[in-house]
Amino acid sequence: MAATFPAAMTTSIRLHVRAPLAAGAAVDCGTAQSRYLRTVMRRSTGDAVLLFNGEDGEWQATIETAARDSMRLICRRRTRPQDVAPDVWLAFALLKRDATDLAVRQATELGVARIMPVLTDHGQAARVNTDRLLAIIIEAAEQSERLTLPALSPPVTLTDLLAAWPGDRQLLAAIERLGSRALPAMVGPPCGLLVGPEGGFSARERAQLLRHPAVRALSLGSCVLRAETAIVAGLAQLLCSGTDDGTAAPLPSSAGDR
Amino acid sequence: MAATFPAAMTTSIRLHVRAPLAAGAAVDCGTAQSRYLRTVMRRSTGDAVLLFNGEDGEWQATIETAARDSMRLICRRRTRPQDVAPDVWLAFALLKRDATDLAVRQATELGVARIMPVLTDHGQAARVNTDRLLAIIIEAAEQSERLTLPALSPPVTLTDLLAAWPGDRQLLAAIERLGSRALPAMVGPPCGLLVGPEGGFSARERAQLLRHPAVRALSLGSCVLRAETAIVAGLAQLLCSGTDDGTAAPLPSSAGDR
Repeated sequence: MAATFPAAMTTSIRLHVRAPLAAGAAVDCGTAQSRYLRTVMRRSTGDAVLLFNGEDGEWQATIETAARDSMRLICRRRTRPQDVAPDVWLAFALLKRDATDLAVRQATELGVARIMPVLTDHGQAARVNTDRLLAIIIEAAEQSERLTLPALSPPVTLTDLLAAWPGDRQLLAAIERLGSRALPAMVGPPCGLLVGPEGGFSARERAQLLRHPAVRALSLGSCVLRAETAIVAGLAQLLCSGTDDGTAAPLPSSAGDR
Repeated sequence: MAATFPAAMTTSIRLHVRAPLAAGAAVDCGTAQSRYLRTVMRRSTGDAVLLFNGEDGEWQATIETAARDSMRLICRRRTRPQDVAPDVWLAFALLKRDATDLAVRQATELGVARIMPVLTDHGQAARVNTDRLLAIIIEAAEQSERLTLPALSPPVTLTDLLAAWPGDRQLLAAIERLGSRALPAMVGPPCGLLVGPEGGFSARERAQLLRHPAVRALSLGSCVLRAETAIVAGLAQLLCSGTDDGTAAPLPSSAGDR
């Protein structure tokens, strides 16, 4: 079946690296990436890999030397210029581990610029495994063809989040059963989405939110969503709708595989 | 901690039943629901439970008799009138089991009217466990406060899906890298969302989509989304945006817990 996949599915390995990228630059991969390339993806000397570091765009590099635990790659040509993630932040009450992992992965895929775990009165977790979340972020960025990594903030209480929230940035809060109207068309970056825990915000927290000048209510429809669903649904409204001219978008009369 | 939850969190058990619901009507719960109420939720004679059947609205019922494997409930008062799910269908290529389960659960939460598994050239599964998916649908409907269950169609090939697709219903197709514009503002129910498999549509399938009169391209932003993320992001655009008057939605000056 693999033979019928689009070419991009089988040949494009994208890796996030920390080294500067430029024509002719050498990039030394560490143990984990080298083993991934050699053992999992069966790549060896001469094969092409895409690299990005969040600053220098995306580069096609070739493997120059491949040892057991190290590989050296040489940047050949820039395949995409650097871009900037839309200035949308996600603040969410920590969930159970699997749900937190899912939220971090999907928020990264959707292109969020900053991920901010929040400690709330009814939260389901009080600690974050930063290393695991960073690994999830990097893998999601590699697979989703992002050129940046979202910043991961250390967990803060809702009180501290609101106290430090920038005055010029709307915070769209998905508050259950508040009966708000739909997202106004004018809302866009810079902004943030706030999603509470499964148990909802406490009365104290709701009062904090209601009196904060940056907070606006975000309606996500008539049903009660789980937190991880609300995160994706809310981000989709802030990140995917983009601009359009109000007309239908007919399909092009032909389209290549890429 | 439970004492500080909103009242609705601790008292509202919602069950989907097949019996007719009306004032004074008796509803006999089967073994599974009776054991859930008695053993998991610790409910017994006199306690209140919310019931819905997809036709008669939501009713508060009380437990009249509670035996080991059976319970009889009596409908007391209607708490919500029946509504109709927005006329949005989801057609998606079968994914791996966990991803399919997640998509079905989240689509139900978001309020979709019909769930249509599709067999594609690059799909990751060819069979559906209908009983498991129905159980996921019922649980998600109960938790999300829906009053309906989405219909679950048997799996069909993409060819058959397109051949039988109603002419008056737009089908928004999330096709990777097609470079379409954002979702036009005029798109709304009745419509459908089509999300392909992780491997993408085959060239043959893309040609089928491109020439089908009901198909429109749906852009979900610049990143490449996993199928299950695309499903939620696409449905959020079709189901959550609703109507708005283009103005900001300030929070009310006060809000109760419900």
